[in-house]
Amino acid sequence: MNYKMMGRFLSQTLFVEMLFMIPAFLISLFAGEGAAWTAFLLTMGLMFLVCALLYLLCKSAPNALNAKEGLVCVGISWIVMSLLGCLPCVLSRAIPNYIDAFFEIVSGFTTTGASVLARPEDLPKGILYWRSFSHWLGGMGVLVFLLALQPTEGNSGFTMHLLRAESPGPNVGKLVPKMRKTATILYVIYIVMTVANVIFLLCGDMPLFDAVCTAYGTAGTGGFGVRSDSLAGYSPYIQNVTTVFMLLFGVNFSCYYLMLLGQFKSVFKDEELRLYILIVAVSIGLIVWNLWGIYGSFAETLRHSAFQVSSIITTTGYSTADFDTWPSFSKMILMGLMMIGACAGSTGGGIKVARVLLLFKSLRRNIRQVSRPNSVQVVRSNGQIVDEAVLRNTNAYLAAYVIIMVISVVLISLDGYAPTTNISAVFACFNNIGPGLEAVGPTCNFAGFSGFSKIILSIDMLAGRLEIFPILVLLSRRTWKHR
Amino acid sequence: MNYKMMGRFLSQTLFVEMLFMIPAFLISLFAGEGAAWTAFLLTMGLMFLVCALLYLLCKSAPNALNAKEGLVCVGISWIVMSLLGCLPCVLSRAIPNYIDAFFEIVSGFTTTGASVLARPEDLPKGILYWRSFSHWLGGMGVLVFLLALQPTEGNSGFTMHLLRAESPGPNVGKLVPKMRKTATILYVIYIVMTVANVIFLLCGDMPLFDAVCTAYGTAGTGGFGVRSDSLAGYSPYIQNVTTVFMLLFGVNFSCYYLMLLGQFKSVFKDEELRLYILIVAVSIGLIVWNLWGIYGSFAETLRHSAFQVSSIITTTGYSTADFDTWPSFSKMILMGLMMIGACAGSTGGGIKVARVLLLFKSLRRNIRQVSRPNSVQVVRSNGQIVDEAVLRNTNAYLAAYVIIMVISVVLISLDGYAPTTNISAVFACFNNIGPGLEAVGPTCNFAGFSGFSKIILSIDMLAGRLEIFPILVLLSRRTWKHR
Repeated sequence: MNYKMMGRFLSQTLFVEMLFMIPAFLISLFAGEGAAWTAFLLTMGLMFLVCALLYLLCKSAPNALNAKEGLVCVGISWIVMSLLGCLPCVLSRAIPNYIDAFFEIVSGFTTTGASVLARPEDLPKGILYWRSFSHWLGGMGVLVFLLALQPTEGNSGFTMHLLRAESPGPNVGKLVPKMRKTATILYVIYIVMTVANVIFLLCGDMPLFDAVCTAYGTAGTGGFGVRSDSLAGYSPYIQNVTTVFMLLFGVNFSCYYLMLLGQFKSVFKDEELRLYILIVAVSIGLIVWNLWGIYGSFAETLRHSAFQVSSIITTTGYSTADFDTWPSFSKMILMGLMMIGACAGSTGGGIKVARVLLLFKSLRRNIRQVSRPNSVQVVRSNGQIVDEAVLRNTNAYLAAYVIIMVISVVLISLDGYAPTTNISAVFACFNNIGPGLEAVGPTCNFAGFSGFSKIILSIDMLAGRLEIFPILVLLSRRTWKHR
Repeated sequence: MNYKMMGRFLSQTLFVEMLFMIPAFLISLFAGEGAAWTAFLLTMGLMFLVCALLYLLCKSAPNALNAKEGLVCVGISWIVMSLLGCLPCVLSRAIPNYIDAFFEIVSGFTTTGASVLARPEDLPKGILYWRSFSHWLGGMGVLVFLLALQPTEGNSGFTMHLLRAESPGPNVGKLVPKMRKTATILYVIYIVMTVANVIFLLCGDMPLFDAVCTAYGTAGTGGFGVRSDSLAGYSPYIQNVTTVFMLLFGVNFSCYYLMLLGQFKSVFKDEELRLYILIVAVSIGLIVWNLWGIYGSFAETLRHSAFQVSSIITTTGYSTADFDTWPSFSKMILMGLMMIGACAGSTGGGIKVARVLLLFKSLRRNIRQVSRPNSVQVVRSNGQIVDEAVLRNTNAYLAAYVIIMVISVVLISLDGYAPTTNISAVFACFNNIGPGLEAVGPTCNFAGFSGFSKIILSIDMLAGRLEIFPILVLLSRRTWKHR
């Protein structure tokens, strides 16, 4: 394995993380939060040291990574980023327990939004900002950001492997032939949409700090709020703006690029987008019907239903109502949406609508194949024949998904919580949503779990965000075997 | 579609069902259960009429079925068998509601063991016998029985398609080149083992009627007991005998055939058998550790753990203890075992150990493939390369399994039960186990569900027993489209 190249990449990742910590540091400094700004300064110093050391050790690395090294590199970068990124919380005593802080920041970077904090409003402002910003950075991916910054195009296989390992979806499409330009376009769209979100929130008289943090959580489909009641305390206008932006950030970003190019027709014909809209509309309709009479008016019912459906399918995890108290049917629809998740190529988590579509299509193909064993059946997506390797990977993804889910539920059940809590906690973490049901419902938090369970759930969050394979490759014995 | 051939097969199926109803009729007659024996007589008369009509209409059919017709034929046979098989319960007013009775007999034929009855001991003896016997018939499959009876070998493709559709497992192996002989061997092993089970139970002073019914439930891995407390009221000896026989009926029957041929070495090297034994041993160990101190002695803890693990992994569903009151960890292990299920080619349900093995292997293959995109990786089972079509089908099976599970949970949640009840009810029915957790736990029953939910759960039971594809083919629009 090309350890030196991986070391150099890790050094760059930490450097970017360090730079992105500066705003949080400044906010703490100007707010006069002594413990917080010294914590940020110490962490940044440590990061710079590690960075410099790795750079000096690895600067002579050959500029090439194979697929496996790409996966390992992405996995390790995310873990180290979290191991160091949680230090400000620990050093400032905002979250004194290291495992708790690690869980919180992994939840941030993976855009999960599961928290161990009962009252986020008690945190220093700098820490609160850093926590929300981790969503924004994790949403599009720090390595994608790095790629956009690379001065030269470099080895295309090398950048492709990294982008593929960090980007969500069964089949990463390049927007343009050059990967560096693809990464840049993605980030420009991302930044513009985030700014638009902030402006819309400010129009609703939301304080600037709240608006920026909420927009970070929305853009990354994360879900960390700045208040303990999430978005329940804000005006209906702000809630509705967030509903719309959550849905927008759950769409495949290549659709926006195509729209910029004026190719509206191919966007409207996109099978994944159509299914995504259909699922959202049907789910909102069913929940409105199921909640009939619980809220005062139709408008209020619709607002809460639409908000929660958008929040869960995009795996954001904000809430305006305690859906744990909703009728069973609504709760089960939400749990189903947790699995489906957002579109591939968006900032959302879950299995992804594109994969669900492929699973359905490959299932239909197999039913036909069983009925007519001698015929040759293919699967098409947007009119194109889907490669068998993509289908195999999609099915392997589902297998890994189910296996990891079952093992995680069994392991965290050692803490003695009821089945619904265990199952929904793993659902909420693995699919990068945030809140689950019962003891981890929208009004509760993950503080009650043991350190062991928090580590398991952190691994689930990472596996969910990086789409399983980087973490499985990291855990595989063969990866570390010398031949 | 060759409707006539399917009609003839259905006629034969009903004839066999009618013949098998005679013992239940006689038991009712001699027990002086007036309502019950007239109900049996009426049902048998009706069955004979349908039978004769179908035979006369379809006797000229060409003796051939293709794969799709085989699947449809199996699906329809099972549904009609259940639609008529539940009539004695309705006509005798033992279970006056038709949907309840249908649920109960589908639960019987599919060897699920989920019941709507709070006190089975209140049923007439004949009905109780028929209910338990349905497990035995459904366990090995009524169509396999028919094949064993066929006077001539007939079209081998035709019998192969039927056997494949009704037998559990990813890859049905013929024991001997002739299908008819394979079916006969399977039934002989099945009968001998059932008789052995009855004898062992009689040695523990179990009443003959109880012993026969319990053995039927064990052999078919069904789980209908004759008492409302399942096997909790019987002696430890009887419980231990049942533990051992449940495990034995969960083994692939081809292993027994190989043992009869003296090929012990290939049995001991069988990967599925080894994994099955390993899972059972590890689960018992973990549950004993988790239950430490709850029961009086180590022996009692071991007895209950071993019984419940065997009962759940073989998808039988008998219980000696209310495992719904066990700690969360033990419950979650049992829920995991519900999914895994018994070995392929046994009478048990679930995903099957062989499929779990294939899923793990194909996942491992894909991790390697992702790491080294240009290499060619194959999956081996017992040293042989597994055909890609089998892998595709196994993965499609998992996809269908997850999709059906999610849709079912959402639909039955309309009744308003808590998530754990809904999820475990679908688990228990789809995997053909019987008891779930909370409101459908071992001391409770399924009577509280609405008629709609009972129909959904009945479809789940049928889909689980027939391994999904026959039911999906039945529900597919293409199957019924004329070209």
